Amino acid sequence: MRSAIGIDLGGTFIKGALVDETGKILYKEEIPTIAMRGAPDILDRIYRLVLRLSAPEGMAPRKIEGVGIGIPGFIDDRTGTAIEVVNLGWRNVAIRGPLRTKLDKPVYLDNDANVAALGEAWVGAGRNRDTAICITLGTGVGGGIILNGKVLRGVTVMAGEIGHMVLEPDGALCNCGHRGCLETVSSATGVVRLAKEALQAGIKSIMDPEDLTSADVFVALEKGDEVAKHVILHATDTLGRALGILANVINPEVMVIGGGMAKAGDALFVPLREAFERYALQRAAKACDIVPAILGNDAGVVGAANLALFP
Amino acid sequence: MRSAIGIDLGGTFIKGALVDETGKILYKEEIPTIAMRGAPDILDRIYRLVLRLSAPEGMAPRKIEGVGIGIPGFIDDRTGTAIEVVNLGWRNVAIRGPLRTKLDKPVYLDNDANVAALGEAWVGAGRNRDTAICITLGTGVGGGIILNGKVLRGVTVMAGEIGHMVLEPDGALCNCGHRGCLETVSSATGVVRLAKEALQAGIKSIMDPEDLTSADVFVALEKGDEVAKHVILHATDTLGRALGILANVINPEVMVIGGGMAKAGDALFVPLREAFERYALQRAAKACDIVPAILGNDAGVVGAANLALFP
Repeated sequence: MRSAIGIDLGGTFIKGALVDETGKILYKEEIPTIAMRGAPDILDRIYRLVLRLSAPEGMAPRKIEGVGIGIPGFIDDRTGTAIEVVNLGWRNVAIRGPLRTKLDKPVYLDNDANVAALGEAWVGAGRNRDTAICITLGTGVGGGIILNGKVLRGVTVMAGEIGHMVLEPDGALCNCGHRGCLETVSSATGVVRLAKEALQAGIKSIMDPEDLTSADVFVALEKGDEVAKHVILHATDTLGRALGILANVINPEVMVIGGGMAKAGDALFVPLREAFERYALQRAAKACDIVPAILGNDAGVVGAANLALFP
Repeated sequence: MRSAIGIDLGGTFIKGALVDETGKILYKEEIPTIAMRGAPDILDRIYRLVLRLSAPEGMAPRKIEGVGIGIPGFIDDRTGTAIEVVNLGWRNVAIRGPLRTKLDKPVYLDNDANVAALGEAWVGAGRNRDTAICITLGTGVGGGIILNGKVLRGVTVMAGEIGHMVLEPDGALCNCGHRGCLETVSSATGVVRLAKEALQAGIKSIMDPEDLTSADVFVALEKGDEVAKHVILHATDTLGRALGILANVINPEVMVIGGGMAKAGDALFVPLREAFERYALQRAAKACDIVPAILGNDAGVVGAANLALFP
């Protein structure tokens, strides 16, 4: 059976896996990124990680089709370069060329949200669906659009930047420089911001602004806290409107929601689905399920391997 | 050279053309729709129109690959049925089957906004671009997304329903039942509504609410009318935000703007481009031109013929 290596480069960890053509992880390994050591050191450790994953101890050697890598930033696909990776302090780091030369194997790049989406669409919650949009609710809101098993990349690998849809033009300032992007409201960070703003305005709540997390907001919601109720309603209404827009524009069969916030389960999904139906055209909403992601942290390595298995 | 017939079914006229594989119109004809006569009569007249277009007088007979038809409503592609065409009062009208049987040629359906977009992307203002989004500003806001020369249809041929992106959740009621859809603000109808509302509120203006058109608003704008200025700023800001969202999500190479409102030229395009850059991620905006449509009323028949030429 054909196999490939998937690498998920993150700010804290580099995850790698040997994945077969059915999407099964045969072996995986995780190493710290240690961003401060710089790009050459990280690329060298990725190279050695790929070698280890290619021939895990005790396993028969297999033919490796290639290596796919998810990059947490902007890439230039023509040159195989990471143009900008804020978390790692990278600018214009050549990745594909050097690794391909050392490994003598094809190397494929995409951004981390796209490979995670591809993983979920391939063998996760979007399995066997023609068109899937996968959204990760974490520090930001990441997204990837999968059409017939392929990532929609757009002309400069910018497609799927769902987190920066401007939904509240007079809203909070986003890292991107614009105001009111989806991720200022509906990410874990956005939920915490909304809660803290209400608390600072003196509204009565059981929440403690100190070290507040989005999970804390969901805990408070369960206890009937009014601020938490208002915040989650706001976050799910805005996210539901974004999903409604995406349903009208892309008309997918499924939207897969992952990331830390998705762990809240029904407390997130019930108001989210209600909001989605408030905003999507009825025919588009009817055609589209909204479901939780199931691959968790493996989505990235599995999707990255898919890039090399089905180029 | 291969040729096909493109049909653009509208509420008032049925346009048809014989189109060669380079997108050139060899012959065209337009007949009144006469919606009141009902579907069987209209389908019969489309059938006879196709026969005339297939062998125009004085032209050597050519091999016709098939017939493409743009339908102004919702279609079911599996059954070849128009599920709902509000303008014609149609519900569940079988189109593909009956025509294919009578013509003994392949028949392809898509919605009218999609075929117009396909025409512009193929041989119009989106020519030679990988990914194009084409938007028509008329009574509503129609849209079509063309990826590598093919219409993005989605799972139930609902993709590209750009006019129903909800951008102002507390905004005006839309025909679709939701509030604040793009087309409530940035269509010709939306612009007239905004102007009339300001006039009814007693704001001083040179515009006459009687028989007001969007062209009148642009005329008043040129004369420095403050209400017109405000209305066009609002309409272009909202449309620019929609285009910004589409750029972040789809990352196209070009957006083509057509329809009656696009005739306003720079008065529309200059503030629209400014708004677009205010809302799109910089890298997505930089990759994407915003240009006027060039095919005019021919876009639909040309795009419809493309369906049959490149199925």
